[in-house]
Amino acid sequence: MVHTFPVRVYYEDTDMGGIVYYANYLRYIERARSDWVRGLGVDQNAMREEEGVVFVVRRVEAEYLKPARFDDALSVQTVLKAVTGARLVLAQEVVRGADLLFSAEVTVVCVGAGGAPARLPAKIRRQLDPTG
Amino acid sequence: MVHTFPVRVYYEDTDMGGIVYYANYLRYIERARSDWVRGLGVDQNAMREEEGVVFVVRRVEAEYLKPARFDDALSVQTVLKAVTGARLVLAQEVVRGADLLFSAEVTVVCVGAGGAPARLPAKIRRQLDPTG
Amino acid sequence: MVHTFPVRVYYEDTDMGGIVYYANYLRYIERARSDWVRGLGVDQNAMREEEGVVFVVRRVEAEYLKPARFDDALSVQTVLKAVTGARLVLAQEVVRGADLLFSAEVTVVCVGAGGAPARLPAKIRRQLDPTG
Amino acid sequence: MVHTFPVRVYYEDTDMGGIVYYANYLRYIERARSDWVRGLGVDQNAMREEEGVVFVVRRVEAEYLKPARFDDALSVQTVLKAVTGARLVLAQEVVRGADLLFSAEVTVVCVGAGGAPARLPAKIRRQLDPTG
Repeated sequence: MVHTFPVRVYYEDTDMGGIVYYANYLRYIERARSDWVRGLGVDQNAMREEEGVVFVVRRVEAEYLKPARFDDALSVQTVLKAVTGARLVLAQEVVRGADLLFSAEVTVVCVGAGGAPARLPAKIRRQLDPTG
Repeated sequence: MVHTFPVRVYYEDTDMGGIVYYANYLRYIERARSDWVRGLGVDQNAMREEEGVVFVVRRVEAEYLKPARFDDALSVQTVLKAVTGARLVLAQEVVRGADLLFSAEVTVVCVGAGGAPARLPAKIRRQLDPTG
Repeated sequence: MVHTFPVRVYYEDTDMGGIVYYANYLRYIERARSDWVRGLGVDQNAMREEEGVVFVVRRVEAEYLKPARFDDALSVQTVLKAVTGARLVLAQEVVRGADLLFSAEVTVVCVGAGGAPARLPAKIRRQLDPTG
Repeated sequence: MVHTFPVRVYYEDTDMGGIVYYANYLRYIERARSDWVRGLGVDQNAMREEEGVVFVVRRVEAEYLKPARFDDALSVQTVLKAVTGARLVLAQEVVRGADLLFSAEVTVVCVGAGGAPARLPAKIRRQLDPTG
């Protein structure tokens, strides 16, 4: 199952090279992850305030294939690859129409107070293992 | 008394117009305010964790006079104009050598838990009224 | 006529105070201006590449009234107040439902090569003076 | 040879988790790369304006090991690992004293007009092959 999230490129995203600044793709894919999580019924504000649990990125492996430009209508496509304990692995791509611009594998963990690993919300665990 | 703080312009700060993106001047002057506060002996981490008090910007009046560009060595010059109760007014300028690029008047307030106004740290109040 | 533009608050927008970082409101209202301009049929890429003309912000007067938080669904409301020569004045507000969070008056100018003032696109001038 | 570059954490860098937002490490290490290039005598403004050549990131592999917090005094340590044709590979770490917080391998290429690979500046090529 692919989660799709639209992103428009604004002035703030570009740099003097006339293209999207490389760090901003990590902002785009984080918006898509938050949207995906919200769509599963997980309220990150409640998670944090009631359980003291937040998502933290542990690892990013990113390829920059083609540049995005001002006013481009992009799409972030997110696929959940693996869920183990406190850990999620996602494949995330940024595309413009049929063009693949950016591709990343992102590892996210759930951590509680003091940074200790915390169990992922059940709504997320069930995505890969509907019996879980 | 003028507080001076150096800022170098990096790729992240520019936009496709080849100049510093307008919102980033607010980042520059916030860095200068944090440096000024640290220099007065105020530890914002301790303020927040021990007293639940943070600085919040209430008002900004900003003029963009000349553009800054990649690799420019800028300086932020900060002058405290007024201190009243929970409120600071600062004049902040961004210059490149003798050139004035950006000028702002910024009103900052101290707020406690729930957003209620909190008394400014004594170390800041004493800046304008050394007998206070 | 009010132009309305939706903004969702993501992790990237917040700071350790748990609220939207003050400079990020300038990013939000710039997105709204770009969307408004696009809706008038003005292509900023073409303006820049064919005529060497870009929009530059000259002045911002901003009030921060209430904080926005992670996951908030905000709306930017933009009204064109004045158009004179190369200059636009806009009133822009960020609201969350009935709550006014942020209010700004923004002066934008059109500049050509070398930073000289350039005539605003006719599609924008006609907004305030439909006979112009 | 290790290039060392200091970074202070400001409000703008943090998120509501109270730590540095993950995309901002890419900003930090880009500042360090720009400083390293400047130190080698390469003027990126001249490269771009006179030769139409810019650096572009092609690949980032990043590990987030420990969080950085507001007011932390960090250091970015950069080592050039390989130079081949238009391509640089750098190892970059963000440390706080003896603590390793972030570690990345970054591949950068030099591109000319239209995105075609361009020869790296001689001052950079000579870093790894002083006879080159």
